[in-house]
Amino acid sequence: MTLTALCPGTFDPVTNGHLSIARRATGLFDRVVVAVVDNPSKAPLFSVEERVDMLREAVADLDRVDVDSFSGLLVDYARTRGFGAIVKGLRAVSDFEYEIQMAQMNRHLSEIETCFIATSPQWSYLSSSLVREVARYGGDVSTLVPDHVARRLKEKFA
Amino acid sequence: MTLTALCPGTFDPVTNGHLSIARRATGLFDRVVVAVVDNPSKAPLFSVEERVDMLREAVADLDRVDVDSFSGLLVDYARTRGFGAIVKGLRAVSDFEYEIQMAQMNRHLSEIETCFIATSPQWSYLSSSLVREVARYGGDVSTLVPDHVARRLKEKFA
Amino acid sequence: MTLTALCPGTFDPVTNGHLSIARRATGLFDRVVVAVVDNPSKAPLFSVEERVDMLREAVADLDRVDVDSFSGLLVDYARTRGFGAIVKGLRAVSDFEYEIQMAQMNRHLSEIETCFIATSPQWSYLSSSLVREVARYGGDVSTLVPDHVARRLKEKFA
Amino acid sequence: MTLTALCPGTFDPVTNGHLSIARRATGLFDRVVVAVVDNPSKAPLFSVEERVDMLREAVADLDRVDVDSFSGLLVDYARTRGFGAIVKGLRAVSDFEYEIQMAQMNRHLSEIETCFIATSPQWSYLSSSLVREVARYGGDVSTLVPDHVARRLKEKFA
Amino acid sequence: MTLTALCPGTFDPVTNGHLSIARRATGLFDRVVVAVVDNPSKAPLFSVEERVDMLREAVADLDRVDVDSFSGLLVDYARTRGFGAIVKGLRAVSDFEYEIQMAQMNRHLSEIETCFIATSPQWSYLSSSLVREVARYGGDVSTLVPDHVARRLKEKFA
Amino acid sequence: MTLTALCPGTFDPVTNGHLSIARRATGLFDRVVVAVVDNPSKAPLFSVEERVDMLREAVADLDRVDVDSFSGLLVDYARTRGFGAIVKGLRAVSDFEYEIQMAQMNRHLSEIETCFIATSPQWSYLSSSLVREVARYGGDVSTLVPDHVARRLKEKFA
Repeated sequence: MTLTALCPGTFDPVTNGHLSIARRATGLFDRVVVAVVDNPSKAPLFSVEERVDMLREAVADLDRVDVDSFSGLLVDYARTRGFGAIVKGLRAVSDFEYEIQMAQMNRHLSEIETCFIATSPQWSYLSSSLVREVARYGGDVSTLVPDHVARRLKEKFA
Repeated sequence: MTLTALCPGTFDPVTNGHLSIARRATGLFDRVVVAVVDNPSKAPLFSVEERVDMLREAVADLDRVDVDSFSGLLVDYARTRGFGAIVKGLRAVSDFEYEIQMAQMNRHLSEIETCFIATSPQWSYLSSSLVREVARYGGDVSTLVPDHVARRLKEKFA
Repeated sequence: MTLTALCPGTFDPVTNGHLSIARRATGLFDRVVVAVVDNPSKAPLFSVEERVDMLREAVADLDRVDVDSFSGLLVDYARTRGFGAIVKGLRAVSDFEYEIQMAQMNRHLSEIETCFIATSPQWSYLSSSLVREVARYGGDVSTLVPDHVARRLKEKFA
Repeated sequence: MTLTALCPGTFDPVTNGHLSIARRATGLFDRVVVAVVDNPSKAPLFSVEERVDMLREAVADLDRVDVDSFSGLLVDYARTRGFGAIVKGLRAVSDFEYEIQMAQMNRHLSEIETCFIATSPQWSYLSSSLVREVARYGGDVSTLVPDHVARRLKEKFA
Repeated sequence: MTLTALCPGTFDPVTNGHLSIARRATGLFDRVVVAVVDNPSKAPLFSVEERVDMLREAVADLDRVDVDSFSGLLVDYARTRGFGAIVKGLRAVSDFEYEIQMAQMNRHLSEIETCFIATSPQWSYLSSSLVREVARYGGDVSTLVPDHVARRLKEKFA
Repeated sequence: MTLTALCPGTFDPVTNGHLSIARRATGLFDRVVVAVVDNPSKAPLFSVEERVDMLREAVADLDRVDVDSFSGLLVDYARTRGFGAIVKGLRAVSDFEYEIQMAQMNRHLSEIETCFIATSPQWSYLSSSLVREVARYGGDVSTLVPDHVARRLKEKFA
C-alpha cells in the first residue's frame, strides 16, 4: 500500500508544532503534502505565496514532504490529487471537537480518513495566532518557529 | 513503506464500533493486528480466550486483519512484533484525554506513534461496558454487536 | 399542563439536524415554535425572511409546529408569547458550555427553563456554518438539508 | 399531552441538587417520578429502602412528585410505567458525555427522550459521593442536603 | 515574600464575577493590580479610559487593589511593573483551555506564574459579552454588575 | 502577608510532575507543605510512611518545603495547621472538572482558596497511576520520577 497523506492548514505562519506533525507523518505515510488552505475570508497576515515559501524552506530538510496550496473544498482537492489520508495534530479538547466534526463531514463527502496524532507536549501551547500576537509586540518567538519565519515576522511587524 | 498497525483493547466483548475501526484501519495500513490486552486486574466478563475467539469470528471477513493477545507493556509487545503504529478510535472528550495521555507516554517509552480516527457517528454512544449492562438485563444488543457476540452474551447472562 | 416550547436559532439555513430536534420536541410539548433570531450583527447568508420561508416549508409536514422570528432578548420574546420552555439540541462539549451559560442567564432573567436534548448521532457533525462552507464550493449537501434548502444554497452561490 | 417524567438516580443520598431538579421538572411535566436505581454492584452506603424513605420525606412538599425504585433496564421500567420522558440534571462536561451516551443508548433501545436541565449554579459542585465523603469525616453538610438526610448521615457514620 | 498579583482582562465592562476574583486575590497576595488590556483590534464597547474609570469606582472599597491599563505584551508589562504572579478566574472548560495555553506561553516567555482560581458558582454563567448583550436589549443587569456600571450600560445603549 | 500553601495528594508515588508543582509553589508562597492524604479506601501501592519518606527525600533540596500526612477532611487539616491556600497542578480537562468541584466544596466548607497552576507541558501526560503501570511491567520510569522512587518501584515489583 502506497499512500500520500495531506497535512492541510492555514500556516499563518508555520510553527515548530506544525513541522513536528509533518515530520512524524513521514513515519506513517510514504509521502506527505503540506498544503496551505487559500481562504481569503480569513484575512491572513501572510499571503498564500509567502506561507508556501516559508513552508518550503521549513521542510527542505524533510524527506518525502512536499508543499502545495489549494482553494475550494478539501475533499475535492484530496480526490484530484489522490491523497490516501488527512493527517492533523491535536492539542486540546476544543481542537478535538472541531476537528472531529470536520473529519466526519469529510468522510461523509468523500470517504477520506483523517488520522489524528497528538501534538508533542512541548508544542501543546503553541498556535500560529499566539505566535503572531507575541511577534506583533516584539516578543521573542525564536524557539517557537524556524529562524527564517521569525525573521519574516520581524519584517512584517517592523 | 509497509506498516502493520496495532488496534489494542479490552474487547469485553468486541462491538460493531471496534470492528468499524479495524476495517477502516485496513485502508490506512498494510496489515492490522487487533490485540486483546490481558489485564487480570480488570475482572473482565469474558476470558482472554473467549474474547480472542469472538474477535477472530468477527474479523473473519476482513482482509489483512489478524487477532492476537498480549500481557505486559503495550510498547514492549509492539516492539517485539514490529508494529509501525497504534490505531485507536475516539468517541468523546474523555476518551480523547485518556488516550492522548497514553499516546504521549507510549511515544516517550518507545517512539511509537498513535493514530486516532473518529468513531463513526452511528457508534458514538457504544461501549463494551454499556453493551454488557444492556445484555445483563436482557436488553436487545443485536444491532450493536455481531450476532455470535450477542449469542455469547445471552449465554453468559442466562 | 399545556406547554408551548420555543426552539430558537439562527437557522442560516435550517438543517436536517434542526428538523430532527423540532420533530422530537413535539413528543415532549403540546406545541413547538421554531423561531429565527434576527441578529443583524451576525451578517447571515440568508435574510430573516428567507430563513423563515425555508423553515416554513421544512416543517410543513410536522404537526403542532409553527415558525416565527424575533429580535431583542429571547426572554422578553418568550414572556410575551407565553412559552413554557426552550428546547435546544446539544452536539458537543463546546455547544454544551455555551448553551448552559445561556440557559443559566435566561433562568436568572426570567425563570424560563431550557430543555436540552442530544442531537441524533447521524447529525452530530452537522452545523449550518459547515453546510454553507460545503455548499459555497459546490459540495453536495443534499443529504444534510431539505431539498428546497439545497436548491436555495445552490442559487445563492451560483 | 399528559406526560410523566422519570428522574432516575442512585440518590445515595438525595441532595439539594437532586431536589432542585425534581422541583424544576414539575414545571415541565404533569407528573414526576423520582426513582432509585437498585444496582447492587455499586455497594451503596444506604439501602434502596433507606434511599426511598429519604426521598419520600424530601419531596413530601412537592406537588405531583412520586418516589419509586426499580432494578433492571431503565428503558424496560420506563415502558412498563408509561413514562413520557427522562429528566436529568447536568453539572459538568463529564456528566454531559456520560449522560449523552446513556441518552442515545436509551433512545436506540426504546425511543424514549431524555431532557437535560442545567443544575443550578449554587449546586454545581454538589454530588452524593462528595456529601458522603464530607459527612464521613464529620464535616457539616447541613446546607447541602435536607435536615433529615443530614441526620441519617450522622447516624450512619457515628 | 511580598508579591503583587496582576489580574488582567478586557473588562468591557467589569462584572461582579471579576470583582469577586479581585477580592479573593487579596487573600492570596499582598497587592493586586487589576489592569485593562488595551487591545484596539477587539472593538470594545467602552474606551480604555471608561473601563479604567468603572473599575476604579468598583474596587474603591477593596484594600490593596489598584487599577491600571497596558498595551503590548502582558509579560513585558508584568516585568516592568515587577508583578510576581498573574491571577485569573476560571469558569468553564473552554476558559480553561485558552487560559492554560496563555499561561504556558507566558511562562515560556518570562517564567511568570499564572494562578487560577475557580469562579464562584453564582457567577459561573456571567461574562462581559453576555452582560453587553442583555443590556443592549434593555434587560436587567443590576444584579450582575455594580450599580454605576449598570447605569453606564443604560446610557451607552440609550 | 505570610502564607503557607498546602499541596495535598496521594503521591503513590511522587512524580517529577508533583515536584515541579511544589517547586513552583515556593515562588508564590512563603512556605509549602506537601501532604500525603491517608485514605485507606484507595488501596495504595505504597504505605503512607513510604510515600512520606519518598517525598522527604525528593524535596530535600527545595527550600521552604515540608512534608506531612493527614487523614480526615482536608479543610479540617488546613484549619488546624493554619494554611493560607491549597495549590494544585492541572493537566487536563477532567482534572479541571473534578478539582474545581473540590475547590468549590472546600471554599463552601471553610473559605480556603485553591490556586491552580498549569502542569508543565513536559509532565502533562504523567500520573502516578501510569507510572505504577509502566513500572509494574518493567518499563523504564527513570525520567519520570526521582531516582530513589524508581528504585523503590523496582523493589516493589521485583
